[in-house]
Order: sequence, then C-alpha cells, then structure tokens
Amino acid sequence: MRREVGVAVIGTGFMGKAHALAYRAVPYAFPDAAQPRLVAVADINEAAARGAQAQFGFERATRDWRTLLDDPAIQAISITTPCSLHKEMALAAIAAGKHVHCEKPIAPSAADALAMMEAAQAAGVVTQTGYNYIKNPLLELARSMIAAGELGDITSFRGVHAEDYMADPEIPYNWRVDPENGAGALAEIGNHIIGLSRFLLGPIVEVNAQLETVNRTRPVAPGAQARRDVHVDDIARMIVKFGRGCSGSIEANWAATGRKMQLEFEVFGTRGALVFSQERLNELHYYRVGDDARTSGFTRIEAGPAHPPYSNFTVAGGHQLGFNDLKTMEMAGFLNAIESGTPAHANFHEAWEIQRVVDAAIRSSIEMRRVTI
Amino acid sequence: MRREVGVAVIGTGFMGKAHALAYRAVPYAFPDAAQPRLVAVADINEAAARGAQAQFGFERATRDWRTLLDDPAIQAISITTPCSLHKEMALAAIAAGKHVHCEKPIAPSAADALAMMEAAQAAGVVTQTGYNYIKNPLLELARSMIAAGELGDITSFRGVHAEDYMADPEIPYNWRVDPENGAGALAEIGNHIIGLSRFLLGPIVEVNAQLETVNRTRPVAPGAQARRDVHVDDIARMIVKFGRGCSGSIEANWAATGRKMQLEFEVFGTRGALVFSQERLNELHYYRVGDDARTSGFTRIEAGPAHPPYSNFTVAGGHQLGFNDLKTMEMAGFLNAIESGTPAHANFHEAWEIQRVVDAAIRSSIEMRRVTI
Amino acid sequence: MRREVGVAVIGTGFMGKAHALAYRAVPYAFPDAAQPRLVAVADINEAAARGAQAQFGFERATRDWRTLLDDPAIQAISITTPCSLHKEMALAAIAAGKHVHCEKPIAPSAADALAMMEAAQAAGVVTQTGYNYIKNPLLELARSMIAAGELGDITSFRGVHAEDYMADPEIPYNWRVDPENGAGALAEIGNHIIGLSRFLLGPIVEVNAQLETVNRTRPVAPGAQARRDVHVDDIARMIVKFGRGCSGSIEANWAATGRKMQLEFEVFGTRGALVFSQERLNELHYYRVGDDARTSGFTRIEAGPAHPPYSNFTVAGGHQLGFNDLKTMEMAGFLNAIESGTPAHANFHEAWEIQRVVDAAIRSSIEMRRVTI
Amino acid sequence: MRREVGVAVIGTGFMGKAHALAYRAVPYAFPDAAQPRLVAVADINEAAARGAQAQFGFERATRDWRTLLDDPAIQAISITTPCSLHKEMALAAIAAGKHVHCEKPIAPSAADALAMMEAAQAAGVVTQTGYNYIKNPLLELARSMIAAGELGDITSFRGVHAEDYMADPEIPYNWRVDPENGAGALAEIGNHIIGLSRFLLGPIVEVNAQLETVNRTRPVAPGAQARRDVHVDDIARMIVKFGRGCSGSIEANWAATGRKMQLEFEVFGTRGALVFSQERLNELHYYRVGDDARTSGFTRIEAGPAHPPYSNFTVAGGHQLGFNDLKTMEMAGFLNAIESGTPAHANFHEAWEIQRVVDAAIRSSIEMRRVTI
Repeated sequence: MRREVGVAVIGTGFMGKAHALAYRAVPYAFPDAAQPRLVAVADINEAAARGAQAQFGFERATRDWRTLLDDPAIQAISITTPCSLHKEMALAAIAAGKHVHCEKPIAPSAADALAMMEAAQAAGVVTQTGYNYIKNPLLELARSMIAAGELGDITSFRGVHAEDYMADPEIPYNWRVDPENGAGALAEIGNHIIGLSRFLLGPIVEVNAQLETVNRTRPVAPGAQARRDVHVDDIARMIVKFGRGCSGSIEANWAATGRKMQLEFEVFGTRGALVFSQERLNELHYYRVGDDARTSGFTRIEAGPAHPPYSNFTVAGGHQLGFNDLKTMEMAGFLNAIESGTPAHANFHEAWEIQRVVDAAIRSSIEMRRVTI
Repeated sequence: MRREVGVAVIGTGFMGKAHALAYRAVPYAFPDAAQPRLVAVADINEAAARGAQAQFGFERATRDWRTLLDDPAIQAISITTPCSLHKEMALAAIAAGKHVHCEKPIAPSAADALAMMEAAQAAGVVTQTGYNYIKNPLLELARSMIAAGELGDITSFRGVHAEDYMADPEIPYNWRVDPENGAGALAEIGNHIIGLSRFLLGPIVEVNAQLETVNRTRPVAPGAQARRDVHVDDIARMIVKFGRGCSGSIEANWAATGRKMQLEFEVFGTRGALVFSQERLNELHYYRVGDDARTSGFTRIEAGPAHPPYSNFTVAGGHQLGFNDLKTMEMAGFLNAIESGTPAHANFHEAWEIQRVVDAAIRSSIEMRRVTI
Repeated sequence: MRREVGVAVIGTGFMGKAHALAYRAVPYAFPDAAQPRLVAVADINEAAARGAQAQFGFERATRDWRTLLDDPAIQAISITTPCSLHKEMALAAIAAGKHVHCEKPIAPSAADALAMMEAAQAAGVVTQTGYNYIKNPLLELARSMIAAGELGDITSFRGVHAEDYMADPEIPYNWRVDPENGAGALAEIGNHIIGLSRFLLGPIVEVNAQLETVNRTRPVAPGAQARRDVHVDDIARMIVKFGRGCSGSIEANWAATGRKMQLEFEVFGTRGALVFSQERLNELHYYRVGDDARTSGFTRIEAGPAHPPYSNFTVAGGHQLGFNDLKTMEMAGFLNAIESGTPAHANFHEAWEIQRVVDAAIRSSIEMRRVTI
Repeated sequence: MRREVGVAVIGTGFMGKAHALAYRAVPYAFPDAAQPRLVAVADINEAAARGAQAQFGFERATRDWRTLLDDPAIQAISITTPCSLHKEMALAAIAAGKHVHCEKPIAPSAADALAMMEAAQAAGVVTQTGYNYIKNPLLELARSMIAAGELGDITSFRGVHAEDYMADPEIPYNWRVDPENGAGALAEIGNHIIGLSRFLLGPIVEVNAQLETVNRTRPVAPGAQARRDVHVDDIARMIVKFGRGCSGSIEANWAATGRKMQLEFEVFGTRGALVFSQERLNELHYYRVGDDARTSGFTRIEAGPAHPPYSNFTVAGGHQLGFNDLKTMEMAGFLNAIESGTPAHANFHEAWEIQRVVDAAIRSSIEMRRVTI
C-alpha cells in the first residue's frame, strides 16, 4: 500500500498555490508515488489561508506557521514565503523533524543556505528546493545525453534567464528589490539558470560577474511621487568555469522588455550540441556531429512518450506538458524521496552550491575580479 | 456554497484517464466552479476499472456501465469508449436523466448524432463533446477577435490536423480502422479541425472532399502474416464553404510521417490574419493591416494573464499551459453548465453539425461532387 | 574557350530586370558556364528600354521587339512581358531560330502553351520557363531525396503559394486581373506551387478545384469611384492526384493578408517527410523514420556547400542565398542548355504540363467535377 | 554622368571573390552609384590571380600587388589577404594615394589599425572595412529605431557570433590560428559582433573578457601525427560597457558545434526590444511596450521595400536578400563615398575602435581585470 505523507504549505501566493496544485495532482499523475495528505496551510493573512484551504482542501488553515511544527500529522512542509523568511522557517521545521521543501532562492546568502543544509543533514530529513524547470523530461534527456558522452567533451555553455516583469521603472519598491531577500534578478531568476547549468554540467567553480541596477529608484508605493533607491541588480552577467573544465556565460535579467520566459541555453560539445528555451518547453534541439552533411542540422525533438515521465500526463506524443505538470513531477519526487529515504533533487546541498555561485557573483562584481568558489 | 455534481466516467483509456484527471483538477484551478464528486468509473475490463478507481479515487468501480444509470449520486456521465458505443450509452444515460459528456466523434454518423442531440434536448440535459483544443485561451482570443471584426471580412481559412500515429502500415487492424466507428482520420482528427473551424467561423454549408486510404491492408494482429483490408480513410482533403460566406480547405491525415500534433490553421481577413499550430499551443500569430510598413509583420502572442482563464493555472505569463489544462477547462465548463442550466460548448448540437460535415465529406468523396449540408 | 550566347530581353519590369541582373551575374557565379552577351533590350516604353540599357549595359535598346528577330547577334530571347503577349513573341522568336526563355505563366491557356512547345520542338530551339524557386539547392536536394526513395513511398503532398499583394480591394483593375493573361492567383502564383509539386513528384493527372473571386470589383483607376467587375480568381483551392499515385492539395492565394512569400509544401512518405517554406528559403526540414525515438524529429537543414551550386555563390555555410541568386542559377542553366544542346528545365514541355493543370483546375471549378488531365 | 572608379583586388580567396562579385553587381543594383572599373587583381599565386581575372573580367592579373600602386587607372584597392598582411599593404596603398577597402580584422592590433587610420586621414583617402553584415537593411532599420528613441533607453545588449568551422580539433594548424593574424575567434568573428554592437549602440568603453583555447593543439598538416600548440582563442566571452551608459555581453566562438552563422543579438530598451539572427537575415523581431496586452508580442518583420535599399535588388517583398547582396551594398557605399568624398562606413576609424575592443579584451583576459578603453 502506498504510504501517505502529511504535508503543509506555508504561503499562499504564486508558489504556494503551485505547491498545493501540484500536491493535488500527484495521486493522478503518479499513482505509484507516495501520496500527499494536505493537512494544513499557513498564511499570515488569515483570509488568504482560509481561501487556500477552501480551494485546495487542506484540513486546516492557520495564520501561525509555528502551529505546524508540533502537528504529528504533518511530515513535510513546503515553504513558499519570501526568501528572507526561509531560514527561520526551515530551521524550525527541521528541528521539529519535518522534511522540508523550500522555494528558491533557498536563502539570501550561502551562509544561511549552508546552515539550513547542515541542519537538515544532522536531522536526517529530506530536503528539496523548487528548481521546477529542471524536471522537464527533455532536460532530463539533455542531462543524460551529456552524462553519457553523446555530446562528446563539452566546450561551452551559454545560459540566460530573462523576463520583463521588473522592466517598468514605475513598479513600486517591493519585497523583490529588498536586499533582505538577497540579490535581485540574480537571486530570483539567475538561480534558475545557474541551477539548470549545474543540473546539466555540474558545479561552477569560478565566476566573473558584473551586476547592474538599471532602475535605480522606484516609487515607494503605487503611483507615489516619492521614490526609494534600489540596491539590488536588475541584470547580472557572468562568465563562469565549471568544475568539469569547460566555461560558459550566464545572464539573469528581469528587465528584458518583451521576454516572458527566456530561460534558455546552448551547450556545445565536440560531438554535438543542444539548444533549449523554456519559451517552447516541449522542444529540444539537437545537433549531432558526423551526420550526412547533406541532411544534418539541428533536430527539433518534441516531448513525447520516449521522455519519461511524459506519459504519466498524456500517453500520446505532441500533446504537451505545461508548467504545472513540471511542478507536479517535482512534488512527486519529493514525496518519493521521503518515502524511500533517498535524496530528492535539487536538495538543500545543491541549492547551497547554487547560492554559493550567487554569493560569489556578488563578490566578484563588487571586487571587480574573478572569484573562486 | 458550490454545488457538487456527481460524475461517472465510462472507459479508462487515454480519454477516460484525461477526463478523470481533469475532473480532479477542476476544484483547484476553478474553485468557483461547480465541483465534481467522482462517484464511479466503468470499464468492461474490471481490472482496468479498479485500477482507475484506485488511481483517481472514484468511490466505486464497475464493469457494467448500466449500473451507473440508476445511481442517484450520479448526475453526469463521461463517455470515453470507442465511437461505436457512444449512441447506446448516451441514449441510456439521457433516458436516465443524466447530463452527458461524450468524446468526439460523437457518433459514426450524423443520423446517430442527431438522435442523441434530440434525445438530450427532449430530456433537458446538458451535453458536451470533447473538442478540448478549442478551450485554449489563445483560440478563444482568436474567436473573439474574428467575432469583433478585428480581422475584417474573413476571406480564407486553411486548416490541417495531421499526425503520424497510423502511418506505419504494420500497425495491426484495430478499432480505429473499424468502419463501425465511422470514418478514419476524417472522423478521428478531422473532427478536431472541422470543430475548430466551426468554433472560429461558424458552420460549414458545403463540402467537396476526397478521402483516401493509403494503407489499404493491415496485419490482422501484431506481427501476423495475414492481412485485412482497410476501408476507412487515412487522409481526407476538403474544400469547404462556410455559412458566413468565405471558403477554405481542411485536411485530416493520420499518416503524416513526423507530425505529432499538427493541428493548425491560418485565417485571413481584410484587416488581419491569424496563424496557429497546436505544436506550439501557447502561441498565436497575428498580422494587422495598417501597421507601419517598416515594422509590421506577424506578432507572436504568448499565452498569459491577458488571456483568461490562463491565470487560473499560473499567474505569471510565459509559464505555459499543457494539454491536461485544456481538458480541465473543458470539464469545468461542463460542470458550470450543469450548475447554471445553460448550454456547454461544444454541445451535442455543435457535435452533430460537425458530424454532418463528416458525413457530407464521405458522400462527396464517394459521389465525386460538392455536397450541400 | 567558353561559348558566348547573345541574349535579348523583352520587358523591363520586375522580371525583365531580374533576367538582366541574372545574366550579368552568370559569368562570376558560373565562370564555366556559357556566357551571355547582352545584345539588346526591348520595351514598348522607349525610356524604360533606354533606362535598362544604361543600367545593365545592353548594347542597344529598342521599343520594337520585332527588331530582335533578325539580329544575328542574338541567339536567345527572354520574354518577360505580361502573359497575353507571350505566345506571339515566343512563336516569332522561335520562327527566327532563337532560343526562348519565357516567364511563367507561359500562356493564358494550355492550348497556347502547346502551340509554343510544338513550335519550339519543331524548330529545335532550347526553351525555358521562369520557375526560379525550384532552382534552390535545397529543393534540388528534396527532389533527389524523393527520387532516390529516401522518403519511401510518397503518401501526401500539401502545397501553398499565398501572398497578399492583391488583398486590398482598392488596388485598381490592372493587367493582373485581366483574363487575357489567364486566371488570376491560380495562373500567377499557383503556377509556382504546381510547378514545384511537379518538380518534386512528377505530373498531376487529376484535379478537383474551386476558384474564388474575393474582391469582385476593383476601381477602374487609382482612387476612382467607378469600379469594374473582376472575373479572375483571388484564391484557387485544389485536390490533386499525381501520376505516381499519391494525392495532395494545392492552394494559390494572392489575398492572404500578411503573407509575403508563403510558397511552401509538406511532403510525406513512408520513410520520411520534408517541409519547406520560401519564407526561409535557406532551410529545409527533414524527418526520417527509424531514428532513435528519444532524439528524432524534424531536422533543420541549412543551405551550405553540401548543396550545389551553393558554393558558386559563397564558399562558407550559413551565408545564405537570396532570390537573385536563384535567378542566376536559372539563367546559367538556360545558357548551358543552349551551349550543350540539351533541354533546360523547366522547359516549355514542362510549362505546358503545368498549364494543363491550370486549365483543368478552371474547368473543374466551373463544371464542379474532378477533371482528368 | 556617373564617375568610374578603377579598382583592384588583392587576394582571391573567399573574400577576394566576394569583393569581385560585389563590384560586378554594383552597376546593376546601384545604377546611380559610382561605377567600378575592374582594373587588376593580385594574388601571390599567379594561377589564382589569372583564374580570378578570367572569372571576373579584371583587365589584368598580377602576382605582385606592389604593381598596383603606381597604376594610375586604379583609384581604390580592396585588401582581402590574411590579417597579418593588411598593414603593409594598406600603408603602401595609402601612400600611393589609393582609397582602401580592407577586410576585417583590419589589423592584428589596435596600434597597427591606428597607424593605418592615421595614414589614411593624413592622405585624405576614403577607407572602409568589411563589416558586411551591418549593411543589412533590417539592421539599418534597427540602428535607426534605436537612434530615434523608439526602444526608449537601452538597458541591455546580448550579442553572439558563433560558428563551428574550427570546432574539429583535427583541422590542421593554419593561418587562422597564427597569432600573427591577431586573436582567434575574437579577431575573426568577434570582430563582427563587436562591430555590430558598435553600429547599433556606439562605442564600447570597458571590457571584462575571458578568452579560452579549447583545441590546444592541432595537427601540423592534414592527417599529420605531429601536433602544434595553438595560442589563440577558440572562444571569447566578454562583459562590456557602452559609452552611452548601458552594458551587455558578447561572445565569439568558432567551435560552436552545429552553428553555421549564429551572428545574433538582443537589445532591450525601456520602450521596446529587437532580436535578430543572421541565420534568418531577412527577419527582425520587434517588441513594443504599450501595445494591447491581448495581442502584444514580438513581431517578425520581413525584409521588404520599406527597408531601403532592399528594392534595389528585388521590388517585391518576401523575395529575400542573400549574403552577396549585402556585400554589394557595402561596395556600392565604398564607391559612393569615393565619388562624393564623404566617409564610408565602417571606415578605418570605426575599425580601429573595434580593434581597440579586441585588444582590450585580450588584455582583460590576461590581466584578469576590467579594462577601460
């Protein structure tokens, strides 16, 4: 019989809802996985907590996340609050013996991430961080092709995560630009492309970065005349070295006018290349050295049954996965890891490694030099 | 308080599972919609029924779909069996006062569809047929732009639904090529592009069609030497006239090597044009007459919050919907129609109109003439 | 030593200039080909003739094309005037023993085309018609792959030539819509896609067509109130059978808002498929059956040195050919055929076959039946 | 009457032929421009010189480029030899009062480029360097939109020039990797993307670069066992600041497996964005802030008559330009500048500025610090 895992979610915003939605979808897409029991949802805004309870069928709602800690029905806690709150919540949850899923960025600093990771290791709990995009079956294909040497020796990586949701200088000062939550675009979406590069190629060991604040002031409130200085980056540009030996470039940019989800990469090897953009998440482009010159080129691979766990969602090729399906895969992996006592991915160790790159990039930018990690 | 609608699903194949998955997702994506209670699942294969019960949490499973008819907890029945079984099941469900969702094609013939439609009208039950692709928010945008005259007078439509799942001549003879289920590619996927053309432009009133069987024999069983003649079409090509005055072409092809989901159209008007392919279901391309010649062209619209109900699935643009999300929208619409007593879309009336086009196309092909509908 | 071929061009419009430009480019792109000597240019508008003489360096200009006929320095004549004038000019040129390149459509009717072809055959002169797009090295690749069986048995063809240069109903009545020049969009651009289908798959033997006039009246002059009825098609839709056994559909549409050069096709076979659009003329997309399911898909082939005569224009891949380069290839082929005494392609025989399809389509549309060719 | 400019070309390789081809095309595409008279071609390989003479119709051929210097029929000299020879040839030509077109990179070092620029200025001759891609009418559109403020304040630039022609480690050691010709990929194709960024946004004033040699040895000759160390870069990655205030990233990579012409950029501004790739040189993608959210997105602009001098090549939209057409535009501009006595673009001053970026990038990479230019 399938084990049930009691779960709670802290936070009811974009990611809080995405977690709840994904937990709800796990039983149907992954009937053989451990199954979530939605015990509780917490939000400092009590109405929001009750709204999420009603929408997603949590057994209870609370405005005090601390009440989750001693609830024996809860084995796992999803933390989806702003980054500045992650450490306190995660440490408390770990101390209470809970498994923890914490959204990215895991913490405003690598030091905090390390503390969280070490606490979790000491407590023996399962951890996961929300690098949902890497759950894409086509990216698992990419990772496995690279690992199997199908691209030969990797010679170069080029990664970008660019969106435009902070491009408008009249967006008021908010938690996204509060340094308490870490860097700006670098922390928020740079995290994804750094994490994706790590997923494909392994850890980064050196970074040469320049961070830039394009919108240097923002209104203190919507429509306000008064403005407040912004101290976090809108754009981060990095030249990086991977431990495996190759180098690459990475850009994070949340002021990229017109771009809604330009999370993309190109990876080149001696025997092939892969090109991907989250703008078309059901496609991966593959070039193979040695094909007949008449007919060689980049092949557009469409996600399908050859790419597990695609078929858990729809048995026929061409039907396409959506963002929420990726999140469902992620949560199923978390629950399975809890059940089996094996590590989930990306876990706090991996998140800490990613955060070390973020920290090193900040230091590199300030000190105007390459920083070894 | 939200009304609950007791539902049952007949069939546990691709579409049976898609219905169950979608019913399960409705409460979370559409918390304000009427909510499904998954009462029962039926499959002639009892193990399959029990498997679906376990996976999706139906209250009971049965190998006899007739036991659903007098179950007062069931208000609505999803019929996802092969087409040849639709009429008997739908008429029985309607006679029992159930609302009916029946997968497409609704019936092997327009006469059967008409009987189903008339029975439903007489009984006053809500009906729906599974034209799930038209639930795409970008296609609702397309429809509304056309209706509002943003493209001017429509001058031409070009539609295709091509896949390759029946391209291999060694796929054994199966229910898909059994004429009891109606025509072949025309019925199975032609239905979708005919339905999509109707959704955008209204009914077709004349058809000039040629059906073709490319794979004229198939093995009687996997790997068998013996072969059986195939009498349904692999490809249907049509020239059509719409009641609104414009004309177009439509192709259905399930032997289109390499194509996994080429459900696509181009619609041209005097003031603009739209181009869409289900291969990239989160994109719609729009050309507007009168823009500055220097910078005019087709604009790639990405699905986002400006396209309801996109935000019911994810609040941020660029995150993308998947196939199952479309199905969830469809089932939410069905449940809401039941609750409000208003028609769902596409309903049996619309499905009958589509089936009339299918029938007319077959007749046109046989009689080698244009057929008025 | 390379033989020189004295050439004359009749007409100085779009195509007249394209011929002159191409003749001028031949020596440099095809130094081993027979070389043109630009003897004369003729245009009823003498100033236009003189302008072209000056621009392209013809030895003389004339307003009377008949003066070309007895000029012994001229071995070949390019006819680029409106279609209604082709027959008279071509027959006169042939009678004078000149080799003839005549722009498409070769004639307003197949009967005229036949007369022209027979006269040329009797006179033993080389002929060519301006199906320039088929000179694309990637289309030669497509043709050769089909001929070599690399796509297996061809099961379906879908072809379109759609542009929007006649979409605006306020474009005045002009020679393009004068029935003396043959049908409308069908004759003018349908010719290209019919010719392309022939190039790839061989002759069409049956057609089922519907022609449609969308803009039924046009101003008699720019800005005029008075309007004149239009009797030629804006859109032609065809279902066709090829002599080789497969079927397909073809559309010609010069009212396709937003489209500038949608000359495209998809051809499906049992072992592969090819997809092409002139909108991206340096790309051909190829799907091969039997590739590893994990990594199969359509491969985007980019024109390069593996595709002769690409390297005659630029030795490095990725640099791309333009329209005028295609025309240069065409004229080089014409000159070489003259030198070697072998047929050029497409020649009048092929153009006549294409025109027979046009005629059959018109008859099919009027008589509302399938027409055998 | 149009002035004639006597020209000579040194070198008969890829670029030598491209120059000759372009000179030959100028009269027909730009009849109102100054016209070239192809006086002489020089190549140290006499057979090559004679071959080019025959192919392109130069009046004479020589193996000694110095004989061009005192030929009064020659007003302008195209230098298309390897970079290490540029300075000597250019200075001699300038000293002889010739106008000089020199292929890029203009010189192995900025110091050499400066000497060449200063000599030209002192002599009052017209200069040009072969940044042919920027002649694309769509890039002129991009430049003018940026200049006119249509994108608002520019916030970010991302540029790449990646190809794979040096990816194979078995390509023998050759002039491309000889440091006498300057850096490797940075000098050869980095030049193009640096030049393009300059064309669009103005000069770069700071660079933070890392150069990398991926293929550290190469065979001394085709198939040889013996290998020779390579000291130039295969990949150069840069973070740059522009004098106008914005920043960006630039990559040059000639080991990018599968890429044939990935010369591309994205430029983001507060009011819009532009995206371009030379892989589809007839398309430019434009996003405009403020458009209706329902229908906004990147618009694919196709090159056409609205983008001069497109119509000099073909009067109808959608027909597409090729690489040689860009080169023709470049040479026409050179000849016109000579005739009018105005600067050509890109001239030696601009080439020197670009070369300063190259030099600064090399220094930055070696010294591991940001370098101000």
